[in-house]
Amino acid sequence: MENGKKYYVGIDLGGTFIKGGIADAEGNILINDKIPTESEKGAGGVAANIAKLTQSLLDKYALTTANIVGLGIGVPGMIDSKNGEVVYSNNLGWEHFFISKEVEKLTGLPVKIANDANVAAIGETKFGCGKAYDNTILITLGTGVGGGIVIDGKLFEGNRSAGAELGHAVIVAGGEPCTCGRKGCLEAYASATALIRDTKRAMQENKNSKMWEIGSLDNVTGKTAFDYAECDDSAKAVVENYIEKLGVGLTNLANEFRPQAIILGGGVCAQGDNLLNPLQEFINKEIFAGEKGPQVKLLIATLGNSAGLLGAVALWL
Amino acid sequence: MENGKKYYVGIDLGGTFIKGGIADAEGNILINDKIPTESEKGAGGVAANIAKLTQSLLDKYALTTANIVGLGIGVPGMIDSKNGEVVYSNNLGWEHFFISKEVEKLTGLPVKIANDANVAAIGETKFGCGKAYDNTILITLGTGVGGGIVIDGKLFEGNRSAGAELGHAVIVAGGEPCTCGRKGCLEAYASATALIRDTKRAMQENKNSKMWEIGSLDNVTGKTAFDYAECDDSAKAVVENYIEKLGVGLTNLANEFRPQAIILGGGVCAQGDNLLNPLQEFINKEIFAGEKGPQVKLLIATLGNSAGLLGAVALWL
Repeated sequence: MENGKKYYVGIDLGGTFIKGGIADAEGNILINDKIPTESEKGAGGVAANIAKLTQSLLDKYALTTANIVGLGIGVPGMIDSKNGEVVYSNNLGWEHFFISKEVEKLTGLPVKIANDANVAAIGETKFGCGKAYDNTILITLGTGVGGGIVIDGKLFEGNRSAGAELGHAVIVAGGEPCTCGRKGCLEAYASATALIRDTKRAMQENKNSKMWEIGSLDNVTGKTAFDYAECDDSAKAVVENYIEKLGVGLTNLANEFRPQAIILGGGVCAQGDNLLNPLQEFINKEIFAGEKGPQVKLLIATLGNSAGLLGAVALWL
Repeated sequence: MENGKKYYVGIDLGGTFIKGGIADAEGNILINDKIPTESEKGAGGVAANIAKLTQSLLDKYALTTANIVGLGIGVPGMIDSKNGEVVYSNNLGWEHFFISKEVEKLTGLPVKIANDANVAAIGETKFGCGKAYDNTILITLGTGVGGGIVIDGKLFEGNRSAGAELGHAVIVAGGEPCTCGRKGCLEAYASATALIRDTKRAMQENKNSKMWEIGSLDNVTGKTAFDYAECDDSAKAVVENYIEKLGVGLTNLANEFRPQAIILGGGVCAQGDNLLNPLQEFINKEIFAGEKGPQVKLLIATLGNSAGLLGAVALWL
């Protein structure tokens, strides 16, 4: 190791695995590893596993806690980052667990935590595709729609860090049912789950759609409609509706926060420019004050699997 | 005057009048006055009028600039508060006017500016109904729908202070046309203008509605539907739809920002508890994470005509 150089521990806490690594302030990962979460051992047991992983990372690189500025953790669920508390996590089955204090006690390191979507947002902004900006929003288009907001280079988490529930803003009042209990949330239109639902519906409504080449409805993925959009009108309509609804949601966020860049993550982003170009056009046309106001650049996330680890490190920068 | 005590100048710049006053840090207004804006004299002429009003306020209270910590201005339009620039103001017909520098030169006082809706938000939070909170959102329900966001006691204006366009988030994709060019914005459902439009439509659809007692469609105001809601089903439906759509928009903001309180301003608030109680119930039911998350308290603005002046003062606190 370089003597005197300072490092950071980043932990990406998931329901199945705890991924961890050590990185420097430039986002260079020295070492990383993962161990099972073992959530059945309860909150205390998981905290002990985080400490165990941290110690093994330090040992492998012959570092001591004196070389580490701090440890960051991205946690799925509702987090009170100021108090280091997991208020509620469905994935882990926790309520009101003061994880920071527990991990500090076990590791001797100062700990910062944030919601995993927020962690990814600060990671992409400090080390990924958003490097050139310090006002960004990350939106992940996966099973659900999550996101995080970076303002002036810092995470914006709302009061009691319970905000930034970006998937759960209604864009179609009374529309499709959402997992949160409301109707018409962005998540109910822009998640991969919603895209698959709409693709299946379009196939059921048009038995002559070329999309039936995939065999059965069971084979529908988030790619199907995009794959057939150029040669099949039903597929094209699904894609156009997906982009319009996502565009509405992103323009709403642009009007509220005026980020320099909106970063898209999650599986749907594999579509690349087929997704990005029409979305960018939509936002340019719809944003408040049009060309008189600041513009918003759409980007696709680049950190992939390292986003959680590097974002947890970025909590310290 | 009390010697050594510090005061602030607050300016509420409108298209017709410049209202100004001097207040202390507790929000006590020592003196206030107004003069015509004279926007036909151009940006420089209006700045000179602001300086003239400021000097006359100081003179009347025998104060000098040495007694004044700073001067705040609330400006209608898109503001770059960091650079003291009016980027674009439709009301005043200005583009790219560096008003802070100009007024500083003329008055010898340091100047801070913000968008008028944001100014009202910080005013209500520091001195009005939001005093007990430091995380609030103000929404004004008037001809349009505007608003401002206060986070940790400070205005949140978004990147380049161009954000917080809270009326221009779509809640019904493809819905009612909005003044901003989009379809289905909150403003197109929750403004007094929208309420009047919907009341007229309901009357036209039901020639037997008791609302016809007011004589003709020309007499419809934002009060009409509320006045008849208890005795007329058409009026009741208008009110219920208004509250539902406003509730959707407020819940979206609650999920994004998690304010402790949402403050409602503008003419529609004269309805008091008839508006507040069903709205509060709607938000409690719809907010993300329900009872597990922090709750949001609905309030009605109390500063009235002083909101602009006191908010401009609050820019310095």
